Amino acid sequence: MLMFHKYLSKIEALLEDGKDLELHVFLEDMHAADIAEVLENLEDDQIKHVFSLLSDDKATEVLEEINSEQFSDILAELTYEKKVTLLENMSQDDIVDKLSELSESRQKEIIAFLDFEDAEDVKELLIYDEYTAGRIMTKDFVSIKRHFSVYYAIETLRATAPDAETIYYIYVTDDIDRLVGVISLRELIISPPNRPIEQIMNENLITVNINEDQESVANLVSKYDLLAIPVIDDLGVLRGIITIDDILDVVVEEAT
Amino acid sequence: MLMFHKYLSKIEALLEDGKDLELHVFLEDMHAADIAEVLENLEDDQIKHVFSLLSDDKATEVLEEINSEQFSDILAELTYEKKVTLLENMSQDDIVDKLSELSESRQKEIIAFLDFEDAEDVKELLIYDEYTAGRIMTKDFVSIKRHFSVYYAIETLRATAPDAETIYYIYVTDDIDRLVGVISLRELIISPPNRPIEQIMNENLITVNINEDQESVANLVSKYDLLAIPVIDDLGVLRGIITIDDILDVVVEEAT
Repeated sequence: MLMFHKYLSKIEALLEDGKDLELHVFLEDMHAADIAEVLENLEDDQIKHVFSLLSDDKATEVLEEINSEQFSDILAELTYEKKVTLLENMSQDDIVDKLSELSESRQKEIIAFLDFEDAEDVKELLIYDEYTAGRIMTKDFVSIKRHFSVYYAIETLRATAPDAETIYYIYVTDDIDRLVGVISLRELIISPPNRPIEQIMNENLITVNINEDQESVANLVSKYDLLAIPVIDDLGVLRGIITIDDILDVVVEEAT
Repeated sequence: MLMFHKYLSKIEALLEDGKDLELHVFLEDMHAADIAEVLENLEDDQIKHVFSLLSDDKATEVLEEINSEQFSDILAELTYEKKVTLLENMSQDDIVDKLSELSESRQKEIIAFLDFEDAEDVKELLIYDEYTAGRIMTKDFVSIKRHFSVYYAIETLRATAPDAETIYYIYVTDDIDRLVGVISLRELIISPPNRPIEQIMNENLITVNINEDQESVANLVSKYDLLAIPVIDDLGVLRGIITIDDILDVVVEEAT
């Protein structure tokens, strides 16, 4: 809390003196969660100005951290290109988290700036009930088909990794997208390139249903020491994954 | 819960029929957390027999998962060599977790089987109050000195990684072991080999004091999306790290 007041007064001072370059450098060094906290305590025109001084990377992180209301307000002030860039960089589950607290018409306006695939994913995620696994999962996971070779699996990973929430686990599906196994990045790297994935994947899967309560998900992730857990529907189709950091956020929020 | 009863009756049946090889194969495929749950429901002689069928790796994982009482009972039945092997493989924070609920004399008996360095670490960790950061931290982290080159830092990582709880963050200390920076494995790998660590490390550190309440630690890890947080003492000396999975365990246990 002491730290927060130091940040706030430093930023207010730099704003008052019009020291934009110094403010930019100072902000880039701050953690996005702290910037978000500061923004909640500034005037509208100050918020707009501070936000305009952030690099795209930092601006994306800040959007992920601020509350829904401010997310919507800040976004409304940006140019078309900036909206598209920042929304594309944001994690899918963070977009859903912000949108879920906005009105349906505001949701639609924002979804219009997403590319087709992301828009479809976000619309799907918004359907799930609050407190379910479906609501906190992300569709940014890496999946490969069971008949892939190790070599081809690594190539697929290279192509999809930049967007993925975690690359420590790679999920294996059959021809109709049912989850059939999992393989760790470590196992993939040490396996012979021509070996079929289905021969080396782990078929002992710990999964949750898309409608499962978030608290049960937390218990499973804690019990089995997982970094991420796959989410399946009633047909066994892999619909998303939930990572341990999002689970921690849920439990911490519940406890406080 | 359904799964648990299936495991239990399958294992009881294999025990009754004396099918040791089949039981061994079945157990190796099970998750250690499930084996621990089954063990809590067997008779003493069955427990001893089931445990004897586990590979060293699986046995270590099971010891990490079972309750303190059973940990102590099972350990008492093992040979000297087996005790040393399994305890050496266990995570430091799990050993502390089990020992903390045993009597002081039982603690001393078990610590006697640890090597000198681990014994000293465990004795230190047992001193911290319940619910503090100190109690759930581990001393199995990777640290390097600020004047190291990237090349030498990677060599140090190679040597210490097998014992470390996480290798995604490498902590940087000065000549008197004070924490001065952090560098990610990713940053280390992409930096020129001759570059000094102090030129590329991140000095914006989020830390907790060794006496900090575990709930505050959870809030910080959640707020800043960390995979691990370093623990320092009043002099700024790096004393341990806490990983996100242990934080989740604390919060889940508190919530249930």
